[in-house]
Amino acid sequence: MLNSDTICAIATPHGMGAIATVRVSGNKAFPVVAELFQRNGKTLTVEEIVTHKAYHGHLINISGDLLDEVVTTFFRAPHSFTGEDSVEISVHGSVFIQQELLQVLVGRGCRLAEAGEFTRRAFVNRKLDLAQAEAIADLIHSESEAAHRVAIKQLKGGFSKELQVMRSKLLEMTALMELELDFSEEDVEFADRSQLMALLQETLSHVNRLKNSFRLGNAIKNGIPVAIVGQTNTGKSTLLNALLGEDRAIVSDIAGTTRDTIEETLNINGIRYRFIDTAGLRQTDETIERLGIERSYKKIQEATIVIGMMDATMGYESMLLSANEIVSKVDWNHQQLVLCLNKVDALPDQGEALMEKFRHEFGIEKIAFLRLSAKRGFGMDGLIDALKHIQPLAHPDATLVTNVRHYEALLHASESLVKVQQGLEMGIPTDLVSQDLREALHYLGTITGEITTDEVLGTIFSRFCVGK
Amino acid sequence: MLNSDTICAIATPHGMGAIATVRVSGNKAFPVVAELFQRNGKTLTVEEIVTHKAYHGHLINISGDLLDEVVTTFFRAPHSFTGEDSVEISVHGSVFIQQELLQVLVGRGCRLAEAGEFTRRAFVNRKLDLAQAEAIADLIHSESEAAHRVAIKQLKGGFSKELQVMRSKLLEMTALMELELDFSEEDVEFADRSQLMALLQETLSHVNRLKNSFRLGNAIKNGIPVAIVGQTNTGKSTLLNALLGEDRAIVSDIAGTTRDTIEETLNINGIRYRFIDTAGLRQTDETIERLGIERSYKKIQEATIVIGMMDATMGYESMLLSANEIVSKVDWNHQQLVLCLNKVDALPDQGEALMEKFRHEFGIEKIAFLRLSAKRGFGMDGLIDALKHIQPLAHPDATLVTNVRHYEALLHASESLVKVQQGLEMGIPTDLVSQDLREALHYLGTITGEITTDEVLGTIFSRFCVGK
Repeated sequence: MLNSDTICAIATPHGMGAIATVRVSGNKAFPVVAELFQRNGKTLTVEEIVTHKAYHGHLINISGDLLDEVVTTFFRAPHSFTGEDSVEISVHGSVFIQQELLQVLVGRGCRLAEAGEFTRRAFVNRKLDLAQAEAIADLIHSESEAAHRVAIKQLKGGFSKELQVMRSKLLEMTALMELELDFSEEDVEFADRSQLMALLQETLSHVNRLKNSFRLGNAIKNGIPVAIVGQTNTGKSTLLNALLGEDRAIVSDIAGTTRDTIEETLNINGIRYRFIDTAGLRQTDETIERLGIERSYKKIQEATIVIGMMDATMGYESMLLSANEIVSKVDWNHQQLVLCLNKVDALPDQGEALMEKFRHEFGIEKIAFLRLSAKRGFGMDGLIDALKHIQPLAHPDATLVTNVRHYEALLHASESLVKVQQGLEMGIPTDLVSQDLREALHYLGTITGEITTDEVLGTIFSRFCVGK
Repeated sequence: MLNSDTICAIATPHGMGAIATVRVSGNKAFPVVAELFQRNGKTLTVEEIVTHKAYHGHLINISGDLLDEVVTTFFRAPHSFTGEDSVEISVHGSVFIQQELLQVLVGRGCRLAEAGEFTRRAFVNRKLDLAQAEAIADLIHSESEAAHRVAIKQLKGGFSKELQVMRSKLLEMTALMELELDFSEEDVEFADRSQLMALLQETLSHVNRLKNSFRLGNAIKNGIPVAIVGQTNTGKSTLLNALLGEDRAIVSDIAGTTRDTIEETLNINGIRYRFIDTAGLRQTDETIERLGIERSYKKIQEATIVIGMMDATMGYESMLLSANEIVSKVDWNHQQLVLCLNKVDALPDQGEALMEKFRHEFGIEKIAFLRLSAKRGFGMDGLIDALKHIQPLAHPDATLVTNVRHYEALLHASESLVKVQQGLEMGIPTDLVSQDLREALHYLGTITGEITTDEVLGTIFSRFCVGK
């Protein structure tokens, strides 16, 4: 039903530019555009259209007047993005012309495309699988080199291929187990149980590896969250401003200046970081400030990296208390801590000695220590180096899961596979084990869209931009 | 010099979209892009490139990694927009990919294009003349059907052709007159003076017609200015809001609510109007309000259409005073007045009679009269009809001058032609007359760029957007 319509949309970014591109896709794309398009005063016939050829000519509006001088390229099915007959019309990028052309196309029986509808058709026509389709949306939204690299790998089908390998292994296992079922009365055991267990373990590890890559993948896609925390007046906002190279946060000597958490992103070496400046931690009766401090604690939980700020002029004992409070909030399973002795410009001789004391106190295994003067810009390179080191970036070739839908599917698949493992170990009847195996297969299949519903597709593609 | 570089730019609007197009033009465009572009893992050689063919493939970045899946179209000189070898690369519309591709191209020896540089090259390579090049900028900025129509006519070369005809007539005249000069000692008169005068008059009329079309052309391009004026509290802001269908201006019963003039554009029937709500006219000691009133008078002068608002509940005598003040400000040579009796909902029976009195007082030749209730929306259709009627739109085929540079050139040409006319009438020596004729030719030639300087070109093209 959906696919019988011919759809059109502006594919280029909104607004005015030198040129803009309008896309048309569907059965009627060729005849509709051919009738509107003239070369040397003559319209093109559908028969004479050469696919993948850029035609320069005039586009005519409903009343037969010249709408624009354009370049039109026809893509004959199946050799198009959607797999259908498609046309791309490059017009002069005035908003008026873009809108007018859409109106003309709608007047000729096209329909305005819904968000993601071109890509959805590409999926339906098997030009790409669902994970690849989702990679296109990620690619368009990628704002850093790392995010781009992950998306393009997924678009190339690296992730899909890994899933396919796993699925075919599991399918093989299922087939063997279900063969047993057919002969169950004869009590045969076709599948070599130890071989089955090994295969299962291998697949489960693979699923878990992918599943666990989500934390990093998601961080790369959305930016690695870095919380800047510490007592009031330790220079957290000054650090944020120094990192950004601008006066983003209001800075004053008055303790408790920052109340709302301030978030800013910064690309460092192709990785996107989300720096979160938080309200200073202290006992306070001021309601707004207290709410701010509660948020600070929450932001610590959400962060991948925590930068703990200490005021070096406060003396070791006071700093130690403050450091201990921060350390107690860190979840060492998935968080990293950088402790900064800020304001060392005020005591040039003692900075190194103080830092040694801290290193001795906490050890250098888990915590990175740094001397800073955020105000003077001293030590900033060291901090940026620490950030680069701290983030255990995956091997460039490793597949990273960036999509929460994929993560959930992998989580479910993992759970099902664990059940299979337990079932086999406990000698549970083959038909029950086989059912769990089918469940794992189902979940893995949803990622690439081998198994899917209209509702799932609707949700996925509605997140796309129109024209894609 | 300029043209030996290969230039590149993003041609589509700024920001994120489904796709974006990067343009490359110049001698190295083909080899540079061919090296970055792979089909089935193999780069294209310049020799095998087919012009006007859309190639689907992979774009590689500096480090040899996949940057994006793209569609690349090559346009071999001279069959391209610029007249040079050109390439258009359609990438996925992420800001990151667009920027990265530009970096890759610059890394390979391309240069970022300056504003308007592609069109400037098209002009230099005689793909279009200067008036047509300027029409492209107008086309991209056109925001109404009328503005679009004027720009597209100019792009098609209608205006250029008219100028060419005039220039060739004047050139013919010059040739005849200068032939006389060569034989001046023999006192011959080759040119038939009466025929010369007729030709001159014809050309002068044509130049003046074009020159005079600027007021309308400019209004169509930038919107027809409509000033809404009147005493305080006559409902001017209410009318603006009613026209826009939104609460743009602050409305209250307090006289003098509006101080700043408020300007909003509205497309009516494909024509763009700029409605200007002004401060109410009255005697006041309040400094800010007085400044506002001075601005109101200024806005009346700038407007093409003046809407005079009167409060019908104030009685005929009071309204008459107010109407007379407005009427005295109107320049009947190029302005039109609509007098509105507002708030007629308050006196349903007297509205028509009041209006008759006004019609009788002022006559209906110059002024359109209307009854309104801006608050209730009564009479709005009538007002819009009046606006449509009042604007003497040129015949759709008439050439309208929209560019102040063209207007000035026509003005100078007109002045020179008048001098020629006077010279011929007064029997001034042929060599002097011929010089004025050459001046007129010069000015007309600057419009299409037959005569131009680098400085002029620089000024014109710097107003373009980058990528055009």
